[in-house]
Amino acid sequence: MADAAYNDKYPSLMIAHDALEGLQNSMDKYPLWDATVKANIKEISDVIKDSIEVPIPKDMAGGYTHTRHKNNYLNAQKAAVLYQITQEEPYAIYVRDMLLEYAKIYKDLPLHPEPRSYARGKLFWQCLNDANWLVYMSQAYDAIHSYLTPQEISILEKHLFVPMADFLSLETPQFFNRIHNHSTWGNVAVGMIGLAMDNQELIDRALYGMEIDSTTIGQKDNDGGFIRTADQKAGFLANLEEPFSPDGYYTEGPYYQRYAMYPFLVFAQGLQNKRPDLKIFEYKDSVLLKAVDALLQLTDSDGDFFPINDGQKGMSYYSRELVSAVNIAYYYGSRNPSLVDLAIKQGQVQLDQTGLAVAQAAANGNVKPFEKRSLMLRDGSQGDEGGLAVIRSDRQDLELLFKFTGQGLSHGHYDKLSYSLYQDGHEVIPDYGLARFVNVEQKNGGGYLKENKTWAKQTVAHNTLVQDEKSHFDGDYETGAAHHSQLEFYDFAFAKAKIVQATEQNAYPGTSMNRTIAMLQVPGVDHDVVVDILKINSNESHQYDLPLYYQGQILQVNQKVKKGNELKPLGTQNGYQHLWKSGVATANSDNTTLNWLDAYKRFYTATMATSQGDQLIFVDLGANDPFNNLKTQPGVIQRKSTTKEAVFAMAIEAHGSYDPVSELSSGAYGSLSNLEIVSSNEDYIGLVLTTKKGIMQMLIVTLRDHEKDTDHDMTINNKNYKWTGPYWYGQIN
Amino acid sequence: MADAAYNDKYPSLMIAHDALEGLQNSMDKYPLWDATVKANIKEISDVIKDSIEVPIPKDMAGGYTHTRHKNNYLNAQKAAVLYQITQEEPYAIYVRDMLLEYAKIYKDLPLHPEPRSYARGKLFWQCLNDANWLVYMSQAYDAIHSYLTPQEISILEKHLFVPMADFLSLETPQFFNRIHNHSTWGNVAVGMIGLAMDNQELIDRALYGMEIDSTTIGQKDNDGGFIRTADQKAGFLANLEEPFSPDGYYTEGPYYQRYAMYPFLVFAQGLQNKRPDLKIFEYKDSVLLKAVDALLQLTDSDGDFFPINDGQKGMSYYSRELVSAVNIAYYYGSRNPSLVDLAIKQGQVQLDQTGLAVAQAAANGNVKPFEKRSLMLRDGSQGDEGGLAVIRSDRQDLELLFKFTGQGLSHGHYDKLSYSLYQDGHEVIPDYGLARFVNVEQKNGGGYLKENKTWAKQTVAHNTLVQDEKSHFDGDYETGAAHHSQLEFYDFAFAKAKIVQATEQNAYPGTSMNRTIAMLQVPGVDHDVVVDILKINSNESHQYDLPLYYQGQILQVNQKVKKGNELKPLGTQNGYQHLWKSGVATANSDNTTLNWLDAYKRFYTATMATSQGDQLIFVDLGANDPFNNLKTQPGVIQRKSTTKEAVFAMAIEAHGSYDPVSELSSGAYGSLSNLEIVSSNEDYIGLVLTTKKGIMQMLIVTLRDHEKDTDHDMTINNKNYKWTGPYWYGQIN
Repeated sequence: MADAAYNDKYPSLMIAHDALEGLQNSMDKYPLWDATVKANIKEISDVIKDSIEVPIPKDMAGGYTHTRHKNNYLNAQKAAVLYQITQEEPYAIYVRDMLLEYAKIYKDLPLHPEPRSYARGKLFWQCLNDANWLVYMSQAYDAIHSYLTPQEISILEKHLFVPMADFLSLETPQFFNRIHNHSTWGNVAVGMIGLAMDNQELIDRALYGMEIDSTTIGQKDNDGGFIRTADQKAGFLANLEEPFSPDGYYTEGPYYQRYAMYPFLVFAQGLQNKRPDLKIFEYKDSVLLKAVDALLQLTDSDGDFFPINDGQKGMSYYSRELVSAVNIAYYYGSRNPSLVDLAIKQGQVQLDQTGLAVAQAAANGNVKPFEKRSLMLRDGSQGDEGGLAVIRSDRQDLELLFKFTGQGLSHGHYDKLSYSLYQDGHEVIPDYGLARFVNVEQKNGGGYLKENKTWAKQTVAHNTLVQDEKSHFDGDYETGAAHHSQLEFYDFAFAKAKIVQATEQNAYPGTSMNRTIAMLQVPGVDHDVVVDILKINSNESHQYDLPLYYQGQILQVNQKVKKGNELKPLGTQNGYQHLWKSGVATANSDNTTLNWLDAYKRFYTATMATSQGDQLIFVDLGANDPFNNLKTQPGVIQRKSTTKEAVFAMAIEAHGSYDPVSELSSGAYGSLSNLEIVSSNEDYIGLVLTTKKGIMQMLIVTLRDHEKDTDHDMTINNKNYKWTGPYWYGQIN
Repeated sequence: MADAAYNDKYPSLMIAHDALEGLQNSMDKYPLWDATVKANIKEISDVIKDSIEVPIPKDMAGGYTHTRHKNNYLNAQKAAVLYQITQEEPYAIYVRDMLLEYAKIYKDLPLHPEPRSYARGKLFWQCLNDANWLVYMSQAYDAIHSYLTPQEISILEKHLFVPMADFLSLETPQFFNRIHNHSTWGNVAVGMIGLAMDNQELIDRALYGMEIDSTTIGQKDNDGGFIRTADQKAGFLANLEEPFSPDGYYTEGPYYQRYAMYPFLVFAQGLQNKRPDLKIFEYKDSVLLKAVDALLQLTDSDGDFFPINDGQKGMSYYSRELVSAVNIAYYYGSRNPSLVDLAIKQGQVQLDQTGLAVAQAAANGNVKPFEKRSLMLRDGSQGDEGGLAVIRSDRQDLELLFKFTGQGLSHGHYDKLSYSLYQDGHEVIPDYGLARFVNVEQKNGGGYLKENKTWAKQTVAHNTLVQDEKSHFDGDYETGAAHHSQLEFYDFAFAKAKIVQATEQNAYPGTSMNRTIAMLQVPGVDHDVVVDILKINSNESHQYDLPLYYQGQILQVNQKVKKGNELKPLGTQNGYQHLWKSGVATANSDNTTLNWLDAYKRFYTATMATSQGDQLIFVDLGANDPFNNLKTQPGVIQRKSTTKEAVFAMAIEAHGSYDPVSELSSGAYGSLSNLEIVSSNEDYIGLVLTTKKGIMQMLIVTLRDHEKDTDHDMTINNKNYKWTGPYWYGQIN
């Protein structure tokens, strides 16, 4: 290759040629490295003893041929790097022979027999998985390249890699030429094999997309996402440009960010090794490194990603993608010692120079605790399309995620201004996540379930406002994708009140929603109190529903709940058809309180500033679910009927626990005796929290003029309050 | 005191006078001891700084005055032993002053204002808790006795202890003079304070009960248990004699056994120290020591007690009662080093010579792993009233509890021949346990809920047969108490088949039930397969329901399940009113299979040898539950209608798991392709399990002539089988 900047040494994609010597003399010095190498040797030395199987593709995700091909690429990549580290031939032979087997069958393979995908693959039911295969196999191929004969290289490139790269791009533009995590995988697959083959045409196709595109504007994939929009951009750099915000937030949410980070980062690593002139890690103000930090912060205290949008619960920073991300971010970033702390938790490193560097830092004690913080992540490629706030209590037990993003591409939910709350790594007020059992074949072959659309994406499935029992944007993706919520203000600087406010003007035309979420310290109360104020103004009368999903069992409600002798669904569409209506209460006092106990034996109380006549509808998920696709989930919906304006205000307390061994309750009841909206107009809302010990705390939030230096002045109950900035919080008695 | 055998030295109830010197020179040698002493000093040194509070009794369990008085006795006991160990006066002063405060108010206290109990206490709502108070306070009093002036001793005995002992016995015979855990507490309270005061009258009253008894034959307590039967015995020795079987099983079940063991053992300890001539630990062939072993074996692999009868889930061998039991059993038993292993797990010891001995053994490495085993525990004071079998797989992951006991006094459930299954400490096929939130004030003051009777005790709440939708013995306690199930045979000697069979002839007059439960090793199958065969013969036609409760979410059913658009209760009484009927399937093939995934991401399959026309009714617990007292619980009921004879046969497999981080399923499907009853007559049942790999295993069980040396001979499918003993199991192809 003519380009002077191009490094044509092997290996270079994952293991850098210059790092080879260090890696080959790395054992018995760094425990984390040793542990990883040994675990991989143990695993792969068993694997390479078995015969190589390259079955003709047949099954869906979770089925035999799917799992076999997936294991093949995972094993081949591991074996190939072990070959470089140990210099033991059997690893290389295993990879070589497997690739040659694939080369024998690939060119004659028809499309995968399962026709379900908008972009069917050949080895798997969708191109996405084929692209995964090619990314890992590119790394494997690069790592054993020096072991192969010219003839073998020729066979593999001609019969396997080039045809597959062309198939995943030229032959499936609807997959390759988009802004979407699918396309990122496609771009990276083509780019990685391009780098591994020193094929500039493929590298350029990967970086910049294809000019010729046979897709039609407005065409959609089977998740309902756009394949092509009018001003379509394509290629790896566009996929880095568009979906990442300047804060490193990826618009589909952390679950898909985790999935997409792997190709972003391993391709960046390959580019850094092969094309250092591109300075890919500095691209867009180092957005790839920011993205790793954002992703790590978007986890609960167990390391599980907040499951907003189509996120499967339980995915965490212990995944192999995050092991890789932490190591790459450490090595190509600022060698941040708090990433070493995470790597130690992960218990393994990537088997290349990045992982070796992390293991060395760990062995040398170059470690700092990884700290979670309250943070604001803007959404949109320019950072001006709403965002996501994470509020964490100072004692780090409570974590709240408030979402006011854009739609989030095809994996987004209709959940403007929704939030979810966690304590010590467990859900308190959960987000449902997706309706899918990834790779559980019994459930629709592991693919998305019908209920993802009929339930999980619908607004009523979330802790946010539903007007007239319809979803935001009437559940229409194109409308949703054209809008985003708006951050009004936030302030996380003070322990005693961390607060964020956002608005949504477009989810229901003619209706504006303003939601303030705060975590407040209240004198005499152990845990921070979560306060939620949702103000609605509409030009017409509507019914407003505000669901609150909780985990656990209600112990007490301070209202009379009527529970019938039979259960019917709460509605017929927009997700309501999936909710059994299990009970109804009508608010007859100013406050409604719910006290519950969760599966981890923790006590919670929600205090709602309900108005006379508000309904409380108790619901259980599971109606109209012929195949048991829905998980159980109790909730309560506050309903206000036929009104233009409304304010929902609620306080949520985590306040105690029960020990089944000592059989003692501690902190079984909440600390609040009253919650009252003392003022509400166009400019301000004032809320007073009164504790059982008689302490009164007031929170006043501005509804406009939120600037930090704006002076405010208002009178509540004949008392004047003056302050500067978007809110006032303090004791008033 | 005149009796030569009586040791009148102080202290002697818990800490033996002779052990004082060793205890006072025990620090900085034995880590477990140090840790316990330091933890107690840390806790109690804070406690004694606060002012002593002895509030006028008012609240139910979980409420303020209840919790205060409970903490008082727990703290006083700890402070008193710390006084002996550290010789620091403030501990003694704290106990002395607290007792004097009680002495000031006790004699004028009326009955507790809450009238709910059949035996109201004074400090607490029931005598039971007052007795708890006196047991702990007796230990405290004994431990600080040497610190008190004669005048203080006189005040305490005259104004507090003697009146309380009389109140708990003479004034409440309905509480004191029974065979019941309540009475055990009452007996021990009176006996302990008798020992502490050297009061032979009280000691005798405790040991032998009262002769004068104003209760009436047939009178019952508020749990429905008998207060007095015709041949009533009473007192501590009778309570040791009657409810304990020769194997150490306590007829109320492990949850109450745990509760009762504490008074049994601490009184035994006091008697051993004060009246060694009684040789209490050798009483009834050392039943107290056997009882500790039985109790420890009646736990899952996390140490949680199997929650049969009125047992609250989560109670475990980490409870303070079991710390005490393990230490006392070690010290007064054979110094079994496997008990030291448990003590190390518990992380603390009892603060007396027993705990010191355990800590010394731990420090000296005198430890053997505590091993769980398959075991048979006979029920009944003579061991001839049925029993309880625990079957454990060789790899120790699966634990099954099969129950064919007597009624279990007032805390027993109507669940003849029921079973529950656990894997790695988590429920697979659960027993519901009780309907109560002990010490959670929000739920009926922490007391039993109405649903304990309407649901938890009912037969349909258990994994056993319900005939004509009625509970065993028609839910009548007196009838139930007059009968027990019968062990037919068991054999746990061979890893490849562990098997037990029991029968019940009285639960439904005219109907006999024979149930065989086995854990079988099947060639080519990783986990043991649980096999359940239930044969019913009746002299009339009935409807037979066999519920199977599971934890988790159904993934697949191989039959068409009709799920309606509304839910109605399955019935109107006997527990059926609490079950929502969520779906129905009619068996149209020989096998019905259910495949599910639990909260711990483990896969299970139940394969049922259903007959054409059998119904499968899917149920969810929660109907007719106005106060949310019931927990969620899914289940499926096999229903066979209008038949005299029936055989239910089922195989349950635990076969895999799902990892949400790697998103991989392993072992998502069961290994069995078929389960068939190949023969069923008066003498034998033959069952064939066929695996997907084509291996056929047959189990033949005898229905009579179960002797080990009896020869059997039968022909199935033209092939002759000859064997000796109660069953045959092997491959047949």
